[in-house]
Amino acid sequence: MSKDGIKKVVLAYSGGLDTSIIVKWLQDEYQCEVVTFTADIGQGEEVEPVRAKAEAAGIREIYIEDLKEEFVLDYVFPMFRANAIYEGEYLLGTSIARPLIAKRLIEIANETGADAISHGATGKGNDQVRFELGAYALRPDIKIIAPWREWDLNSREKLLAYAEANGISIEMKREGKKSPYSMDANLLHISYEGYDLEDPWNEPGNDMWRWTVSPEEAPNRTTYVEIGFENGDPVSIDGEKLSAAALLLKLNQLGGENGIGRADIVENRYVGMKSRGCYETPGGTILLKAHRAMESLTLDREAAHMKDELMPRYAKLVYNGYWFTPEREMLQAAIDHTQQVVNGVVRVKLYKGNVDIVGRRSNTNSLFDESIATFEDDAGAYNQQDAEGFIKLNALRLRVAASKSK
Amino acid sequence: MSKDGIKKVVLAYSGGLDTSIIVKWLQDEYQCEVVTFTADIGQGEEVEPVRAKAEAAGIREIYIEDLKEEFVLDYVFPMFRANAIYEGEYLLGTSIARPLIAKRLIEIANETGADAISHGATGKGNDQVRFELGAYALRPDIKIIAPWREWDLNSREKLLAYAEANGISIEMKREGKKSPYSMDANLLHISYEGYDLEDPWNEPGNDMWRWTVSPEEAPNRTTYVEIGFENGDPVSIDGEKLSAAALLLKLNQLGGENGIGRADIVENRYVGMKSRGCYETPGGTILLKAHRAMESLTLDREAAHMKDELMPRYAKLVYNGYWFTPEREMLQAAIDHTQQVVNGVVRVKLYKGNVDIVGRRSNTNSLFDESIATFEDDAGAYNQQDAEGFIKLNALRLRVAASKSK
Amino acid sequence: MSKDGIKKVVLAYSGGLDTSIIVKWLQDEYQCEVVTFTADIGQGEEVEPVRAKAEAAGIREIYIEDLKEEFVLDYVFPMFRANAIYEGEYLLGTSIARPLIAKRLIEIANETGADAISHGATGKGNDQVRFELGAYALRPDIKIIAPWREWDLNSREKLLAYAEANGISIEMKREGKKSPYSMDANLLHISYEGYDLEDPWNEPGNDMWRWTVSPEEAPNRTTYVEIGFENGDPVSIDGEKLSAAALLLKLNQLGGENGIGRADIVENRYVGMKSRGCYETPGGTILLKAHRAMESLTLDREAAHMKDELMPRYAKLVYNGYWFTPEREMLQAAIDHTQQVVNGVVRVKLYKGNVDIVGRRSNTNSLFDESIATFEDDAGAYNQQDAEGFIKLNALRLRVAASKSK
Amino acid sequence: MSKDGIKKVVLAYSGGLDTSIIVKWLQDEYQCEVVTFTADIGQGEEVEPVRAKAEAAGIREIYIEDLKEEFVLDYVFPMFRANAIYEGEYLLGTSIARPLIAKRLIEIANETGADAISHGATGKGNDQVRFELGAYALRPDIKIIAPWREWDLNSREKLLAYAEANGISIEMKREGKKSPYSMDANLLHISYEGYDLEDPWNEPGNDMWRWTVSPEEAPNRTTYVEIGFENGDPVSIDGEKLSAAALLLKLNQLGGENGIGRADIVENRYVGMKSRGCYETPGGTILLKAHRAMESLTLDREAAHMKDELMPRYAKLVYNGYWFTPEREMLQAAIDHTQQVVNGVVRVKLYKGNVDIVGRRSNTNSLFDESIATFEDDAGAYNQQDAEGFIKLNALRLRVAASKSK
Repeated sequence: MSKDGIKKVVLAYSGGLDTSIIVKWLQDEYQCEVVTFTADIGQGEEVEPVRAKAEAAGIREIYIEDLKEEFVLDYVFPMFRANAIYEGEYLLGTSIARPLIAKRLIEIANETGADAISHGATGKGNDQVRFELGAYALRPDIKIIAPWREWDLNSREKLLAYAEANGISIEMKREGKKSPYSMDANLLHISYEGYDLEDPWNEPGNDMWRWTVSPEEAPNRTTYVEIGFENGDPVSIDGEKLSAAALLLKLNQLGGENGIGRADIVENRYVGMKSRGCYETPGGTILLKAHRAMESLTLDREAAHMKDELMPRYAKLVYNGYWFTPEREMLQAAIDHTQQVVNGVVRVKLYKGNVDIVGRRSNTNSLFDESIATFEDDAGAYNQQDAEGFIKLNALRLRVAASKSK
Repeated sequence: MSKDGIKKVVLAYSGGLDTSIIVKWLQDEYQCEVVTFTADIGQGEEVEPVRAKAEAAGIREIYIEDLKEEFVLDYVFPMFRANAIYEGEYLLGTSIARPLIAKRLIEIANETGADAISHGATGKGNDQVRFELGAYALRPDIKIIAPWREWDLNSREKLLAYAEANGISIEMKREGKKSPYSMDANLLHISYEGYDLEDPWNEPGNDMWRWTVSPEEAPNRTTYVEIGFENGDPVSIDGEKLSAAALLLKLNQLGGENGIGRADIVENRYVGMKSRGCYETPGGTILLKAHRAMESLTLDREAAHMKDELMPRYAKLVYNGYWFTPEREMLQAAIDHTQQVVNGVVRVKLYKGNVDIVGRRSNTNSLFDESIATFEDDAGAYNQQDAEGFIKLNALRLRVAASKSK
Repeated sequence: MSKDGIKKVVLAYSGGLDTSIIVKWLQDEYQCEVVTFTADIGQGEEVEPVRAKAEAAGIREIYIEDLKEEFVLDYVFPMFRANAIYEGEYLLGTSIARPLIAKRLIEIANETGADAISHGATGKGNDQVRFELGAYALRPDIKIIAPWREWDLNSREKLLAYAEANGISIEMKREGKKSPYSMDANLLHISYEGYDLEDPWNEPGNDMWRWTVSPEEAPNRTTYVEIGFENGDPVSIDGEKLSAAALLLKLNQLGGENGIGRADIVENRYVGMKSRGCYETPGGTILLKAHRAMESLTLDREAAHMKDELMPRYAKLVYNGYWFTPEREMLQAAIDHTQQVVNGVVRVKLYKGNVDIVGRRSNTNSLFDESIATFEDDAGAYNQQDAEGFIKLNALRLRVAASKSK
Repeated sequence: MSKDGIKKVVLAYSGGLDTSIIVKWLQDEYQCEVVTFTADIGQGEEVEPVRAKAEAAGIREIYIEDLKEEFVLDYVFPMFRANAIYEGEYLLGTSIARPLIAKRLIEIANETGADAISHGATGKGNDQVRFELGAYALRPDIKIIAPWREWDLNSREKLLAYAEANGISIEMKREGKKSPYSMDANLLHISYEGYDLEDPWNEPGNDMWRWTVSPEEAPNRTTYVEIGFENGDPVSIDGEKLSAAALLLKLNQLGGENGIGRADIVENRYVGMKSRGCYETPGGTILLKAHRAMESLTLDREAAHMKDELMPRYAKLVYNGYWFTPEREMLQAAIDHTQQVVNGVVRVKLYKGNVDIVGRRSNTNSLFDESIATFEDDAGAYNQQDAEGFIKLNALRLRVAASKSK
């Protein structure tokens, strides 16, 4: 008989060992039908082979989808309009993918008449929160099964024993990544946690990194690239218009081969602990810097400063999983309102880990006025005498206070 | 007769052509006595030779001071506790030196019985504001003479003509920097403005930069350095305790020879215009990253996030010249309150422009708890079931809203 | 001959003594044609009689307009969506009217081919800033004449002498308000400054106040009123739909007769000084409280809190005159985004100065869920066990810190 | 045998029916020794009679303490320095008392060798969070028993049956308050929840309120009171120095008899639901207004604005129970830093629910400068021409943008 009245569950399914075990465990434990959902969000692995595995596990409703364009266009780009960085370093590569998965899980549940969803995130991490907050926000009565919080398979040995006992090929463990790290990848980034990173004094070995060469290994030549922006979003590279996903892929390639975008940080998880994570975000690292440079030329000072002040809030909301919320949407409304003038081209120099902005121009929206800023005679564009009154009135409160405190 | 009743003025005097002209102009125009003040804040030029020039100009009260330790200890380090960056890129190298100069100008005015101060900053820039806000805050009745806002010597030709007519050696123009850029330097940074930077699409030539080699020219080897922190301030390098100024000098040298700390930005001046600036902040660039890493291990999450949210306000205050103000001081009180736990060592890898954090440890204040964060069995340190309630209650408002909006 | 090349100037003209003198002074001093602009924004005086005065002063282009609906709809209501209060007390009655006047001055200048505008605000106050920032933002090349900053008529005696010498009837001074206070009124409020208010220890006499009876004088009965909201704006009173201006007028009447909306404050002007002001904002005081109550029922918690945190910034922008700016508009975009759910009815009790909320309901958007909030058995709507995990994970960082600091 | 290894538990004990049942339930369910802790924090009931009840229940370690001065001095006053209001209306009367109780529970646990604490707050409310976050922050290994989240006595009937079955006098239910509302009181306020308040459209009857007369019932005369402040805290009334608790008590009496301090709101609980609450905070309502007025005269503009912007964060922290946290403490450090100048006297007029500020003065710290603010000739204290430069430079970015967007 079904448990908790659950009859059908949609599972975020990678086809790997863990989610294969979850399929079996859900079928056994909940006696319910399992629908699998596998998405290509640019993690760099073929998703179609997953179909055969799902079929072999007795799944009748199998969803395999390419969500790369939607991921970049509706999630990554809006986030980059905010210049979002969590805790000064983390570009939110994992965080930003979770709401999209949550949304598709719920949509598929609605389509297939499922009453529950399930995922393979553990009870210690942020991802469970991101999946579940997203799901609850979109369908408040959804039931959620988080096997890692429920079962007693809390060690590698127990997992493998369960797999073996249930005829799940543990070969799949040996395929693929062959990494001792816990990893997550999508078109924006790849992350590493666990293993020797658990001591924050350890420097990870160079063989951990998968997407970028090290600066030392990167070619000893500079690469110049021009990124075109429209309404705050990148739209072209070296004059060539590209789709959202194609553009990010191209930036990843450029960044990766030039040793760009590695980060090694200790971060604060929403569930309350500090954890060490290493990230490669080659394209995102270039994009963030280029976007800021485009804004520096076209955005009003006070709007830019307001964005800078709101940014940490925005980044925290994304990190914590509050994408589908009124507060993220109201910040997004403010941010997007500023981006209509963020148009033009930024020229970037890439070299062995360095991303240097070397030029920016905007035919339509530059607020840089050479005739005012010049060190030479400005022909009256700016009246230096104005500065005296400006300073005097800005100082007035300070002068009054100083004279009163004597 | 004296003008505006001014009898004695203290001038921030570099000994260069511009301030030499100002000495003469003040003597002529205001018929007042001039006191010169020249400070060594690490700009990399000898200050003692200035004495002879001042004497030759008839100055009787000549102040020449080494303020490097005070500069770093009381201005640079407090600012780095805040992780201050203006507009995402600028480390505030010029901004942070101005309040100290303003303070000494006022103190010397008080000592010498002067009723005015003067400086060589133009009417278009931020520095006039920083000098004058500082001065007014410390002595509300001070008179301020800003020659560039007053005189009609608004072109290079007129200046040179004035110099020649008044026997001021224009040779000094040809000594020294020989740079077409407008520059400013102190122990934290050197800046470049004007000339071919006035077109924000131009990439500056490599010969503009003075303190750093380019990443391309930097040696093809990695350098590891360990920076020790106490109460949020750096105190040692590779285990060796150093004074504040000596430590920053050492970081500048390490950064400079490894191609670290160049920035090329379009920034928003307080007086209302956008301007292009290039900066070299080799030591500061390393320090900022190391300080953040030290905090990542030792600082509470919410305190860190609050600091991140307040930082842009703090940076703007410093940039705009509001150092000696109640609002900067109240932010500093908040920031400093958090730093007592920021103790430990950060290990940094330097290579061709890259500053990579590769390790951080704190014997006394680490909040990193391996037993909780581990991907392996944690022996009950963390109860994964807690996450369900955590998520459920955080989702409650979203679920209620979703169910009501159906 | 014309001065500063000005040929035609549009003057914000009230028809009172001061602006009548300004007309003459502009004609004499600038030898230019004067266009007058007089707006009814609910100040409570007829504007049509102004026409004859303007004609008598030789004005050929006379603009007299009823802007009450535009004022309330496009300025007052958007501001109340933000729950804006300056410095905890001031409802921004004067501030919010200035941008509209500035906008019409510029539009009329464009229509009439004028190259300048002029206003009667002094050089000490906020209004000059509000007028001029608005004007510059809408037409960057506009010339602005601020007579109070230019002329030497800096005392009452000189003004009257000038009037008499130029045949301007000083009778008008004796008509009308006959108040020793400097006053400003529009549909949102009336303000008082100067005279015996210049000592912040003085309590103003009851005869100063013009729009409200004192609580003591108010009738000894309660009045209940129901205010209907749509998308955050009030649209009806006691079920009757009213235009924006009519609704505010009605609330003013209700508030005024019940002794509601007086404020007596010391405020910080943008130009740097503290000043004492007294304000009557009867309708606005009711509206602010009612709007907050409507939001309390319909707005998401975090959106509401974000609004509360942004509010002081928004209020400061309005106070300082930054209405037509990217930063005000981006905040407005965020605020407006939240208001689509602020629909329903608030029931308010008025009594001798008190505005008490006694009921709020929303058929379509209430987020109040009695079944969850109840103190009685909730039939499983809320699982109290969830609270344990919620608390445990929120406490985790504090527990780790406490255990490490032992 | 003991449960969860708990041997001794300190219970926050009021002596009422609920906590009397908890004593018995703890003894039975956990087989552990119970220590009771009862505090007088100004709730208006004698605490000494509780001793006999505790003894009768077999308690051997009974703590009964008068914490009124500590409560006001170390919790209420620091909070009022922040001008804290939650969601625009709630003065945080319940919230601010919880950390003190938590602190004493932990201290008593440490003194008595107890390994657990317990409280009578339900699983739906904020108080459980406040108690427990405080306790965990002060002693990370403390065990917490929250009976309402554990037992099945989830209805009034079951509770009474349990009491009767265990010989607990249910008479105590009929003594005392005899109110259908859930109430909480301390020296700062009394609160009401539940019963007919569960419909937010219902107006509560006048007999619900206990501490204040209604404005209608209040005497028909004005009362003037002068409150003296030192370093931001009130220290005297009408010139008479009073202890912290005595002062608040006096303000409560003055407010209560003048119908001041009632609030009726829908608020957002930290656990995710909206709830209706009514509050009487007579003294606090007067104090908040007086403190703001004292600040208006003595506090720098930008410090005041920064306080206003930080206030909602501070209030939210207090409301949510984060008193003993780095983030509250860092905000407190910033706030307290500003208060050294908040010295002087505020004159307040009380009348039938109204609290009107009618005067404020500070001999030592007033920043109000009549000679600058005056509408009359200021003898050069302020140069009106300064305003032009001030406006021009503040407008520069807007003008550049406007000219570029043409």
